[in-house]
Amino acid sequence: MPTTEVKNDHIEEVKDLVEAGRENEAAALLGELHASDIGRIIAALEEDNAIRVFKLLEPEEASLVLLEVDERRRKALISSITSEELIDVVHEMETDDAADVISELPVEDAKQVLDGIDKHESIAVQKLLVFPEDTAGGKMQAELASVIETASVEETIEEVRKKAHDIDNISNVFVVDREGRLKGAVPLDKLILAYPETPIISITNRDTLTVRTDMDQEEVAKLFQKYDLISVPVVDHDGRLVGRITVDDIVDVLEDEIFEDFYKMAGLNIESRALDPAGRSIRMRAPWLMLNLCTAAVSASVVKLFEGTIEQLVLLAVLMPIVAGMGGNAATQTITVIVRALALGEINFKNARWVLMKEATVGLANGFLTGGIAGLIAYLLGANIMVGLLLFLAMTANMMIAGLIGSLIPLVLKRFKVDPAISSSIFVTASTDIGGFFTFLGLASIFMKMGLL
Amino acid sequence: MPTTEVKNDHIEEVKDLVEAGRENEAAALLGELHASDIGRIIAALEEDNAIRVFKLLEPEEASLVLLEVDERRRKALISSITSEELIDVVHEMETDDAADVISELPVEDAKQVLDGIDKHESIAVQKLLVFPEDTAGGKMQAELASVIETASVEETIEEVRKKAHDIDNISNVFVVDREGRLKGAVPLDKLILAYPETPIISITNRDTLTVRTDMDQEEVAKLFQKYDLISVPVVDHDGRLVGRITVDDIVDVLEDEIFEDFYKMAGLNIESRALDPAGRSIRMRAPWLMLNLCTAAVSASVVKLFEGTIEQLVLLAVLMPIVAGMGGNAATQTITVIVRALALGEINFKNARWVLMKEATVGLANGFLTGGIAGLIAYLLGANIMVGLLLFLAMTANMMIAGLIGSLIPLVLKRFKVDPAISSSIFVTASTDIGGFFTFLGLASIFMKMGLL
Repeated sequence: MPTTEVKNDHIEEVKDLVEAGRENEAAALLGELHASDIGRIIAALEEDNAIRVFKLLEPEEASLVLLEVDERRRKALISSITSEELIDVVHEMETDDAADVISELPVEDAKQVLDGIDKHESIAVQKLLVFPEDTAGGKMQAELASVIETASVEETIEEVRKKAHDIDNISNVFVVDREGRLKGAVPLDKLILAYPETPIISITNRDTLTVRTDMDQEEVAKLFQKYDLISVPVVDHDGRLVGRITVDDIVDVLEDEIFEDFYKMAGLNIESRALDPAGRSIRMRAPWLMLNLCTAAVSASVVKLFEGTIEQLVLLAVLMPIVAGMGGNAATQTITVIVRALALGEINFKNARWVLMKEATVGLANGFLTGGIAGLIAYLLGANIMVGLLLFLAMTANMMIAGLIGSLIPLVLKRFKVDPAISSSIFVTASTDIGGFFTFLGLASIFMKMGLL
Repeated sequence: MPTTEVKNDHIEEVKDLVEAGRENEAAALLGELHASDIGRIIAALEEDNAIRVFKLLEPEEASLVLLEVDERRRKALISSITSEELIDVVHEMETDDAADVISELPVEDAKQVLDGIDKHESIAVQKLLVFPEDTAGGKMQAELASVIETASVEETIEEVRKKAHDIDNISNVFVVDREGRLKGAVPLDKLILAYPETPIISITNRDTLTVRTDMDQEEVAKLFQKYDLISVPVVDHDGRLVGRITVDDIVDVLEDEIFEDFYKMAGLNIESRALDPAGRSIRMRAPWLMLNLCTAAVSASVVKLFEGTIEQLVLLAVLMPIVAGMGGNAATQTITVIVRALALGEINFKNARWVLMKEATVGLANGFLTGGIAGLIAYLLGANIMVGLLLFLAMTANMMIAGLIGSLIPLVLKRFKVDPAISSSIFVTASTDIGGFFTFLGLASIFMKMGLL
């Protein structure tokens, strides 16, 4: 059984071999590995070595590896081979993967490749190229088995025979009418059990779930998950069968959608990766940090309002970060739970109000608890009892605010069809900072005016 | 085509109907919906209404719905029906789902159900019950099509005929020897194309990827993703075929693993949900917040060290949250990227050092940038130029620390086989708070000693 992860010494080994110019041995070693393992090795190596290793691969391996590495590494690898070699590599790909790769090429190279691969493939790929990558049309592959509704079981099996070689996991044969409109699908097990002369239409499952080329990939993914699909036919606006999407193309979509939520919460572009060059990471993260600087400035200006208060009792400056920080943590817990629930569709407008009140309650309760402890400790450490009370009150208030804001912002964004994950930490923690400083220092100045401090 | 999400008026509608005692109409409405839609409705309703709706369902629908709702809601629904009804419901389930549900029942009820369902099913389920839920054994189903290696294609098709009714998407027939040890698998399309008298072994794919009952579900999920599997056979320690896992059981595992990472980062138990009762949420989140209180106390004590410094220049108390906050945000970006990369296996010990240096560089650069701007603005707003310089230096230093700590902690935890996500925000932000206060206030006191402030 293949191993689940690349042993690092493989990376080391391959690296050493290519650097020592012992290409043949490297090639031999790679020959024993699965393409996705080779992909990881190539992703982990520095570019020059990655290219050397890539050049050792057969077109078929190379075609698989290209799909395993990220876009920038792919660009580097592609530009390292001749257009003839690239044509051989693309020829090995399924149409959907070929389309993805070609869509990343400069127009000129794309033309060359499309002219280079065989006519049928080229036409199929060009059809796919018109669809945005994040739609059903962009995800689908042209490879599928289909027969006309008047066909017999025998003729259908003949179609399977024709396609079996170049299509992985044919699970259904699709049935269409003269105009190519989808009538339904026949699962292979049904096909196996039917008599050769049976008309295919009589064993066709007519309420086959279908998606249209322009459906968003996230929706497609939700359908796969909801109805436990293995593959789904894709039709155009006239209901004509144009392709199929298989579950393996969808798993990554599902994962990326989740990562994307949390990326947005951290102010990251989904494209940014740990292995990006530093320059790129700096550029991609800077704008967000700028925005952070603005919100930080706002909270600072709140503190500035109370400079006088702090002057009278510097201990306040010592304690205020606790109030703000605890609010931020409570808010992060709330927002994480909410964003997940929204992603899974657990929150609807029926229960949204309930969720809001609940999160406020949870914040209030935990604020009461942790605030009480904090206040007590402050007092035991010799702070004026009024300072302890102050800490207690401010933390309780601020953590309730945290629960409220932490659920309100994503829900409101969702209501207005904005991605709730955008409501990311930043605005929420900004509000808990502001809320924390304001409640704590505000109460303090009141206490002072009342002569309690 | 089924809709991708439940319209809220459905929830409203169903709720109103059951509350108005118009059960029949509610049942009719539900009849038109897919089980997963009904599941969402039942998940969204208050418990008493959820139960009323659940009681309207046929055993088959009910069996599907039970799998759509979370554990606590499931408990409530199950306890609302008689053990006879429960037996009918469980009877409708696939063995793996039945095992999951039964494993949640009190021993007594579990016994009753196991005695109630038919003998074969009961034995199959009991076999599954021995495996931990998060292993291949716990995920697999006993339903599969298999033949002995001496069988012919014709006999194999006969096996498919027998199983076709109670097994969804048979994609392979598994081939075993006399002792039941797995020899390989035959995909249905190969089976269709073979002649009836052909010995099955001659078209058997012998290097079928296989998992053992005790493999962790996360590893199984990674295999499915890596090798684009539709289903995989599960064998015991002696290589005997005991079940199969299909991709639809795996998609949720993949998703949960990701959510879990970010949940841990926010100090949340994967079990906590937005729709949990407040009391439960309070209990589940409190311990984490307590831990936060401790780290917050530490950072406060750092500020305390510099009370004297602040006394001399209260403006420092105004600006210090900016330094700490920006560090926190930079750290969150870093840790999010790292945790993802570790989850996807992009980071190995070969490139870990590089990643570390890179994140430090990114932090340094963005600290230099944002710190410069912050310092300039402070100066333009009338602060002493030395204060501006101070802000600039402290932010640069602290954001470099953020990049360093934000990548170091998860990498070190990974190194020691601890889940890197645990390195959650908390410790990282604690260090950026401490780092921020220390660098900023520390430098300030030095500046003062040097008479610069």
